[in-house]
Amino acid sequence: MKKLMIGSLAALFLTASFTASAQIDPEDQIKFRKAGYSFMSWNMSKIKAMAIDESVAWDPAQVQAAANSIAATANSGMGALFGPGTEKSIGDTKTRVKPEMFTDGEGVVKVGMAFNKAANELAEAAATGDKALVAKAFAAAGDSCKGCHDKYRMD
Amino acid sequence: MKKLMIGSLAALFLTASFTASAQIDPEDQIKFRKAGYSFMSWNMSKIKAMAIDESVAWDPAQVQAAANSIAATANSGMGALFGPGTEKSIGDTKTRVKPEMFTDGEGVVKVGMAFNKAANELAEAAATGDKALVAKAFAAAGDSCKGCHDKYRMD
Repeated sequence: MKKLMIGSLAALFLTASFTASAQIDPEDQIKFRKAGYSFMSWNMSKIKAMAIDESVAWDPAQVQAAANSIAATANSGMGALFGPGTEKSIGDTKTRVKPEMFTDGEGVVKVGMAFNKAANELAEAAATGDKALVAKAFAAAGDSCKGCHDKYRMD
Repeated sequence: MKKLMIGSLAALFLTASFTASAQIDPEDQIKFRKAGYSFMSWNMSKIKAMAIDESVAWDPAQVQAAANSIAATANSGMGALFGPGTEKSIGDTKTRVKPEMFTDGEGVVKVGMAFNKAANELAEAAATGDKALVAKAFAAAGDSCKGCHDKYRMD
């Protein structure tokens, strides 16, 4: 029963937006997913500078804008950008994704849902304007990024 | 007086997040801004497929997720990614930005604010789930993208 549920969630997570992106060719799917991750990394770096490193003055509005962007990206259905044909680099469009991303449905759902949860909790923490809460939620979000990188991304 | 106000808005728009990204080197700034625009284009294409072309079945949840991502990106302080040294391509990191982006403060604020407004209104329309409202707001958002491309992006 639990396995069935996870299987259904996997289907949901992996195919949620396939309909809307069915027309997108594999190379563009790789480009778009890399763009999403890249843009999230910029927003993570801003929060890190303000909440963790304290190399930049604490600015709740900027932290909130960055966290909202990360959460909205996480919620945008990026599973649709891992369609057939995107398992390997295509010409100059490089991908570091491991083959396991396309075979380990249960594992992918697990890290994907953990990331979505952490991203949304980071946005909630940012909305409070409390630096300590943001620092804690940021660490959890970073762990959830790493959880996927360790399993499904090549070094 | 009006000019002064616009000047202040220009300063706000262009420097809002400079503090937080002061450490980001120019090449990364170009990469991150291109990533943001690329990811928005994916989300715009999903909304277009569902609300305008009707080549994909209408799915209010997907439309809302896409519009939220566009709005959050627009609100994320991308002005910080047009810092000194980002006026031209750097090695393989190409940019199509025109020099006017860095000299025409008033004009940049105008298109930037129009884009932010249109992106937020698209998210508001998406939240209603009404296809006609989304189609109208999408067209306005597309016009606001074009307003900047025509003036500040090379072909």
